[in-house]
Amino acid sequence: MASQYFSLQNLRFLLHEVFRVSELSKITRFEDYEADAIDLVLDAAKQIGDQYLYPIHREMDKNKAYFEDGQVHTLPGLNKAIQAIAEGGWINAHLDGADGGQQMPLTVMNAGLFIFYAANSNAAPYAFLTQGAANLIHQFGSAPLKDVYLDKMYSGTWQGTMALTEPQAGSSLSDLTSTAQPGPDGDYLIQGQKIYISGGDYSGVENIVHLTLARIEGAPAGTHGISLFVVPKFLVKEGRLVSNNVTTAGIYGKMGQRGYTAAHLMLGEQGPCKGYLVGAPNKGLSYMFNLMNEARIGTGNLATGTASAAFYASLQYANERPQGRHPGQKDPTSPQEIIIEHADVRRMLLFQKSVVEGSLALVIQASLWADLAENSSGEEAENAHLLLELITPIVKSYPSEQGNYAVSAGMQVLGGAGYTDDFPLEQYYRDIRVNSIYEGTTTIHGMDLLGRKLMVEKGKALKLFMGLVQQEIQAAETNDALSAICQQLASGAKGLHQTTMSLMKLASEKGPQYFLADATLYLEAFSIVTIGWLWLKQLRVAETVLAQGQLSEADLDFYRGKKLCGEYFFAYDFLKIQPLLQRLSNQDGLTVDMESSWIN
Amino acid sequence: MASQYFSLQNLRFLLHEVFRVSELSKITRFEDYEADAIDLVLDAAKQIGDQYLYPIHREMDKNKAYFEDGQVHTLPGLNKAIQAIAEGGWINAHLDGADGGQQMPLTVMNAGLFIFYAANSNAAPYAFLTQGAANLIHQFGSAPLKDVYLDKMYSGTWQGTMALTEPQAGSSLSDLTSTAQPGPDGDYLIQGQKIYISGGDYSGVENIVHLTLARIEGAPAGTHGISLFVVPKFLVKEGRLVSNNVTTAGIYGKMGQRGYTAAHLMLGEQGPCKGYLVGAPNKGLSYMFNLMNEARIGTGNLATGTASAAFYASLQYANERPQGRHPGQKDPTSPQEIIIEHADVRRMLLFQKSVVEGSLALVIQASLWADLAENSSGEEAENAHLLLELITPIVKSYPSEQGNYAVSAGMQVLGGAGYTDDFPLEQYYRDIRVNSIYEGTTTIHGMDLLGRKLMVEKGKALKLFMGLVQQEIQAAETNDALSAICQQLASGAKGLHQTTMSLMKLASEKGPQYFLADATLYLEAFSIVTIGWLWLKQLRVAETVLAQGQLSEADLDFYRGKKLCGEYFFAYDFLKIQPLLQRLSNQDGLTVDMESSWIN
Repeated sequence: MASQYFSLQNLRFLLHEVFRVSELSKITRFEDYEADAIDLVLDAAKQIGDQYLYPIHREMDKNKAYFEDGQVHTLPGLNKAIQAIAEGGWINAHLDGADGGQQMPLTVMNAGLFIFYAANSNAAPYAFLTQGAANLIHQFGSAPLKDVYLDKMYSGTWQGTMALTEPQAGSSLSDLTSTAQPGPDGDYLIQGQKIYISGGDYSGVENIVHLTLARIEGAPAGTHGISLFVVPKFLVKEGRLVSNNVTTAGIYGKMGQRGYTAAHLMLGEQGPCKGYLVGAPNKGLSYMFNLMNEARIGTGNLATGTASAAFYASLQYANERPQGRHPGQKDPTSPQEIIIEHADVRRMLLFQKSVVEGSLALVIQASLWADLAENSSGEEAENAHLLLELITPIVKSYPSEQGNYAVSAGMQVLGGAGYTDDFPLEQYYRDIRVNSIYEGTTTIHGMDLLGRKLMVEKGKALKLFMGLVQQEIQAAETNDALSAICQQLASGAKGLHQTTMSLMKLASEKGPQYFLADATLYLEAFSIVTIGWLWLKQLRVAETVLAQGQLSEADLDFYRGKKLCGEYFFAYDFLKIQPLLQRLSNQDGLTVDMESSWIN
Repeated sequence: MASQYFSLQNLRFLLHEVFRVSELSKITRFEDYEADAIDLVLDAAKQIGDQYLYPIHREMDKNKAYFEDGQVHTLPGLNKAIQAIAEGGWINAHLDGADGGQQMPLTVMNAGLFIFYAANSNAAPYAFLTQGAANLIHQFGSAPLKDVYLDKMYSGTWQGTMALTEPQAGSSLSDLTSTAQPGPDGDYLIQGQKIYISGGDYSGVENIVHLTLARIEGAPAGTHGISLFVVPKFLVKEGRLVSNNVTTAGIYGKMGQRGYTAAHLMLGEQGPCKGYLVGAPNKGLSYMFNLMNEARIGTGNLATGTASAAFYASLQYANERPQGRHPGQKDPTSPQEIIIEHADVRRMLLFQKSVVEGSLALVIQASLWADLAENSSGEEAENAHLLLELITPIVKSYPSEQGNYAVSAGMQVLGGAGYTDDFPLEQYYRDIRVNSIYEGTTTIHGMDLLGRKLMVEKGKALKLFMGLVQQEIQAAETNDALSAICQQLASGAKGLHQTTMSLMKLASEKGPQYFLADATLYLEAFSIVTIGWLWLKQLRVAETVLAQGQLSEADLDFYRGKKLCGEYFFAYDFLKIQPLLQRLSNQDGLTVDMESSWIN
């Protein structure tokens, strides 16, 4: 039996009691997704997690992927796991029934993905990277492209990737230099190097389809000259697969996620490498951002999953390990306490729980907005879209950044044991760290939030968001048990709003460099208010259920734990908004008005 | 040539300009340590670091230590490095000349150790663990023990270890169960298991001397029944080394410091294992705490070294890597900026620099107090002793905890590259994490500070410490450039003092569990005031030097950088004391008045 890596009860609590996701079934496309159906979906995901994913997580790390004789070697269990996910109908679950899908809401799908990611952050990403790549072809590709690629990709037979990064172009995509030379048949010859390509090569996969950014000869410089191409590892010729000269130069030795390969690819170095244009020329980056936005929620979800698995591993240890006595207990012959009885161990566990459950609420909220943006209409759809755009940098970065600290706290619960590979914490610590880098570093997302998202439609998204926070406070503050927390959140939200206004003034007075200098801190402050709002939502439900009474022992523990954890968040971590807002109000330009040579 | 892993200029600045360490030469024992002599010592350390330590740091990780056929395998370079340190006279540098030493002040020695640790946190600890173990024999051992062991250990020929931890006794040493049965010759037969024994076994070392805690048959339970023994791997019999039945069951697969072995030892499992009592029976723990207190400063120094090496690796990258453009620069054909020009990269570099230089100041301050405690007299010695005791939990934990974040920031500066083993950041990230666990976890040190150190002599140490902070503020506040920072520090120190008083009241009203529940946060708040004080010291010197003018270009950069970094610390990180003090003032017993089953 797999150890616990997530809480099904908490996932159901969020989906049903907090977010009432089954109300999506009022939308015709989602009419099958009533509460019971959602629960079945979760059970099915857990089964795949238990059976195929969790059991190989540590093996994928200990026997890490390696590159030898031009081949990438991974474990056979990986291919079986991807196949199990595909056969469960997960890769194309969101497609229309007519296209072979299940018309699954993204909210439900991301709940399933959370389970997969918690079970195995090294294996599950392969499948959902393929999904993202296939979606681009599905959405923007020509009919012939769809014919050749979609079935193979949605069935998990062929892998998909995003091939963006180049040696000279990491965060700065406008500096991409891979080239596409128009060929005689309407296709292109691609040349260039792509680095850090996740899922870019591994054993036993039939074909790999790289959704590749490159410049068509003569295209304008910068982001407006980038086009999107399908560049397969193998071309299909007369029913047979033949090399397309996509060569793997090697894979990266990553600190974590060692089973999830990241390849260095040479395109067209050893012979002609064909690429097929997706959509219109020079529109590649805007297409890719469709996938990137999904991938950003995916990264937040991945970090949440890893933090969840780490939390349950450390909770198990804390419930089993005897060590030490309470302060004041001086009798050395008294039995040792189980360490969960120690206040500081509890604090570290509550911190982890607050990060995991706050992050998961965030992922679900974002997914719900994505469903509404695409499947409702009028103002509801428009507002959902604006809120989703606003919140995406936070969904990407809060679970990643706080997840690092949460897993570190999990390791600390185990003490010396946590630092050794006798326990999984050290792997989770290494695995989760990459999420602060994937799909744009935290800095990039701070700049995206403050420099771009807040400006859209004259700040309408921020107004909508602040309105939701106020609305939740109004709904909760009549409950005496929540009034102090409501005040705390209101004051934090007000501080954030004032800081935002003062930063806007700075932007107009001193320009973008001063304005954006501390964007990373702004992102963190915004995250604290967002997570505070999501905890208040959860607390309000928990208080209501507890007031109704008549709960089983297990349910009592669950709702009391939920209440305790929300209270923990406000008593400890919400307070951290203060120094952030204080720093942001000090617009001294400390990191702008200086010489680089002073850092020595 | 080795890449830069520390700043010699900064080390000299701290030793000479801030702490005026050469004034120790007024003490007869240290009369040779004038400023020039200290500089020669540092140069000698740097040479060993450059030649023997830094070059094998990554190799020790990539070709990590392993256990096969009952043997631990490490690289030959390790033994050479230990030998170079020993031949440089470092292991016994602090001993009297009559004992073969150099009468080196601990302050100077720890400056050298900082260089070694920065150069290679996997190799250098072997030598200084031996030093600590040898010191115990030197201080408390009988003449025959000294005869057999000291020369071999101080010459680096035999390794020394601390053998404390057992499977059931990690943080809780009072639960040790290894036994010592008196033998006919005044020696003892030892039986038990010891785990996580650093330096406990490796290739090519002639002998390993385990300073082992065990209970003599019939000894009282708890900490008052623990004795200290010398338990060598090999006994010397008629000039030959014969097995003492200390068996290595294996080594731990550690996340980092993979070249610094941690062994699982079986004592007396395969035959009689002799131990030689050190000092009096049942006094073992008090002797061991002599070593532990040194080792705690050592751990802080080790973390500081690793953070330093990581800082310079990320600084180098930041000075070389072009990526992106300033916000507002819309021309995609303009050249990319070197990333150190980006404000958020600068913030991450300044954060690292502030942690490294704040930590190093802390290590030096603690070492200076240790020198004065042991080598001056009367009130000066007594006060130095009290301050050292007070500050030790902070020296152990601030560099370790903040070092984790600093190295993480270093990795983030490199983006994706930082997560790969193409660069050393990922190793530093793994290496440094253990320091929050070594020699007592951070929690243990929080409890030590709040529950023990503050109580000594009715809080005299705290009064002395607060007096020093006030004194520094008074010296600095007349300088206009520092007056705002002085106010900030004064207000933080006042808040810390008030919080301390209110916690003392809580202790008497509600008992030790409530009092100590958030001791880890108290430790962090105390650290912020301590580091703030040390930055003010540095700032005052830098302002004075800058005001005098006539500096070379390089010196101008150095002192302006020092000033900038201190200002950074107060503008960003000092602010974090607020939420800590706020939490500590909320004595709701959140982690005490709860059921463990609520965490689920």
